[in-house]
Amino acid sequence: MTEIKATNITWHEGHVDRTVREGILKQKGALIWMTGLSGSGKSTIAYTLEHALVQEGRLAYVLDGDNIRFGLNKNLGFSPEDRTENIRRIGEVGKLFVDAGIITITAFISPYEADRQIARETVGEGNFFEVFCDTPLDVCEERDPKGLYKKARAGEIKGFTGVDAPYEAPTKAEHVIDTSKLSPQDATIELVAMLTKAGKMSA
Amino acid sequence: MTEIKATNITWHEGHVDRTVREGILKQKGALIWMTGLSGSGKSTIAYTLEHALVQEGRLAYVLDGDNIRFGLNKNLGFSPEDRTENIRRIGEVGKLFVDAGIITITAFISPYEADRQIARETVGEGNFFEVFCDTPLDVCEERDPKGLYKKARAGEIKGFTGVDAPYEAPTKAEHVIDTSKLSPQDATIELVAMLTKAGKMSA
Repeated sequence: MTEIKATNITWHEGHVDRTVREGILKQKGALIWMTGLSGSGKSTIAYTLEHALVQEGRLAYVLDGDNIRFGLNKNLGFSPEDRTENIRRIGEVGKLFVDAGIITITAFISPYEADRQIARETVGEGNFFEVFCDTPLDVCEERDPKGLYKKARAGEIKGFTGVDAPYEAPTKAEHVIDTSKLSPQDATIELVAMLTKAGKMSA
Repeated sequence: MTEIKATNITWHEGHVDRTVREGILKQKGALIWMTGLSGSGKSTIAYTLEHALVQEGRLAYVLDGDNIRFGLNKNLGFSPEDRTENIRRIGEVGKLFVDAGIITITAFISPYEADRQIARETVGEGNFFEVFCDTPLDVCEERDPKGLYKKARAGEIKGFTGVDAPYEAPTKAEHVIDTSKLSPQDATIELVAMLTKAGKMSA
């Protein structure tokens, strides 16, 4: 390293270590991976958690259909292959966000166990928190916030998870939430406790 | 919004606004897009800038071949189509990082003007700073830090930018650096000044 006395800028060969950014942010990078049926409450909880965290001065960020499906993954559809590539890319972006020190929350149906496992391995154990929104299908379908179940039942949408495409329930999720019994606020309290217990934020 | 008095957590419908995160970080999101030939100094300047910024307590992050080509874009090669998709994805990830409030630095050859223009439009004027590492080919080739020019001249690598694939020089870069004349440290000082002038960081 060649130090320039006047500016204190030194030359470095590689990336800044993650721990340096975590020191600046006074938190540790984490990926909260929300999974569940359409209408199971993933996005609602993700946003509620994001807002709660930034209110405490934490750097949090939600990746969901709004900013991924219309951006990075706009060239992907809903075939099994495209769903797999969709989740693969989200896992890779999540890894970058975690490396940047951000508490990142993803909200995607992510119906395949194998795809979620790849995301877990990409991001790494200790960084990855799978949160299963285990809300019964009939509750999700009654909510039908985007009218998608109705269209799927009418045959206007093909390959819709829970109707004519499978959802493989997690078997080793770090946390399970049934939003037919738990409010988004109470779910958020549980997730903040989970992150705190995992040492991602000072109490 | 339903307030829970005990916890002060409220329910929100959408994403946290970028300005909220920028307030927490006391900086504004920006994407510094380094472009130039292999060996032109892109990565060296990117790392030097990243280290200089975090030393000042700024949240900065470098996207380069190390963390993109072996991760998000590992399913892409070097054909013109794959190069275009490579840059498209990097632009989309850069947009997410800027939205998260991060001063982001990308270091990719990015030889095509049209691809860089797409990245600029994706990230948005005012957020995007194209920095052209305008180092002469003979200097880059003499440096040849990875031995790639030697292999390209020997025909062991096909489609190598500057040898048998084109590099389209930027015509409207926000900043131009010739690293045969300017050290990485001095380049960093110029880029910090550029960011400060653009209002991305308090002085």
